Amino acid sequence: MRKHTFATLIALSLAFAAQAGEPAKPAAHAAHDALDYEHQEQWQAAHDKSQSPIDIVTSSAVAAADNEPRALEFQHTRGGIDKVEDNGHAVQVDTHATQATIRGRHFTLAQFHFHAQSEHTLDGKHFPLEGHFVFKAQDGRLAVVGVMYEQGKANAVAQEVLDDLKPRKNKAKPAQQEIDIEGLLPKSRGYFHYLGSLTTPPLTENVEWYVLPAPVTMSKKQIDGFLSHYRRNNRNIQPLNGRPLIRYEG
Amino acid sequence: MRKHTFATLIALSLAFAAQAGEPAKPAAHAAHDALDYEHQEQWQAAHDKSQSPIDIVTSSAVAAADNEPRALEFQHTRGGIDKVEDNGHAVQVDTHATQATIRGRHFTLAQFHFHAQSEHTLDGKHFPLEGHFVFKAQDGRLAVVGVMYEQGKANAVAQEVLDDLKPRKNKAKPAQQEIDIEGLLPKSRGYFHYLGSLTTPPLTENVEWYVLPAPVTMSKKQIDGFLSHYRRNNRNIQPLNGRPLIRYEG
Ligand SMILES: [Zn+2]
Ligand SMILES: [Zn+2]
Repeated sequence: MRKHTFATLIALSLAFAAQAGEPAKPAAHAAHDALDYEHQEQWQAAHDKSQSPIDIVTSSAVAAADNEPRALEFQHTRGGIDKVEDNGHAVQVDTHATQATIRGRHFTLAQFHFHAQSEHTLDGKHFPLEGHFVFKAQDGRLAVVGVMYEQGKANAVAQEVLDDLKPRKNKAKPAQQEIDIEGLLPKSRGYFHYLGSLTTPPLTENVEWYVLPAPVTMSKKQIDGFLSHYRRNNRNIQPLNGRPLIRYEG
Repeated sequence: MRKHTFATLIALSLAFAAQAGEPAKPAAHAAHDALDYEHQEQWQAAHDKSQSPIDIVTSSAVAAADNEPRALEFQHTRGGIDKVEDNGHAVQVDTHATQATIRGRHFTLAQFHFHAQSEHTLDGKHFPLEGHFVFKAQDGRLAVVGVMYEQGKANAVAQEVLDDLKPRKNKAKPAQQEIDIEGLLPKSRGYFHYLGSLTTPPLTENVEWYVLPAPVTMSKKQIDGFLSHYRRNNRNIQPLNGRPLIRYEG
């Protein structure tokens, strides 16, 4: 028994050591680590290595390979709203109309919500707000498109969201029946891409991130409108831990 | 302090409860769970929910949506071998030549290796061997193509792998300079797809699985050749935990 436990610990140490270094050959198994299949219930999954948000160090991003599909295409950006709400930790809009083709695969927009200040930083810089557009694929994969908002011209679509949050006679229906997320997205579709996690519990690492660095403007009054709901609902920056950060030009 | 900790526990319980049920609306945040951003270091990532291998219950698989790219295409299947070895827990071939387009994205084959008996089961049935073809994308995503082997006609490529494992005068070079993995893959490229993990420590949940149900044959002598290295190096079946299992027709 003793021996088995020791062997398992050695095997796990080697496996984790192999993972901690730079990912060279993607070892489904690190070389020469004997595994104890008779006591595999003692194996433990690697945890918390691929979390979000991150600081996007733009100089460390590598260009997307030429043979990589670059497309981040949105279809039916104008669509019905299911719900606009302050859900207790963010202002969120539930929807179902918008589709996206993200690097060749099909996704559907489930909801979008806002963090103050931005969760991702660009070379250490926060923006006042960050929008998260949460897309889901048939296989359960999540792809979140992150958009930065800065102070400037008023944003008509942001105003629609804020208006929907105001007390109304008939709370059952949103004030708007439709919204066009196009107005919440920057014209330039260049992005930074990495593999990460949800930024709130359960922090699941099943998320492909697409952070658009070109900011979209809102007026000071609109930004303050979001801040009146949440002055701080951004998770702290998490370590990259050697994950590739890929840059796609817009 | 007491209060904060309690609030955090409540928030986490709600979040985990939300995840345990069927995934309806992909909540980056479950509704109405207040989050304690001042004590976020106490948040914990969900663990061990999306592990591999699984039993593929064929009747529970859903057909791939029509708008989903179906392609599992291999390019340059004949290519140079870096190393053929018994690495201490599997017979593994390191390579770098083969490219693949998997649901629209570009991957490179890093290595393939064999488990006895099969790790995945089809409606509860094991095969004598399962091959894992480990592909890696630029962003670090792993896609593993699983192939089932059954007893039948001898397999010329499997024989090349077995020959490379025999003691030789010049161990530095493999007996073969090239290998064509085409001979190790079934003609029918239909597959079952789900999101899972590595099946050995660190058991990382960064793996897209593509399990080809059409078996490829090896002779009894060839299967025994692999079994002489490992009679049992398959991880136990893991729970699906509500993950979608998608069926793509060949
Ligand atoms: Zn978010
Ligand atoms: Zn394997």
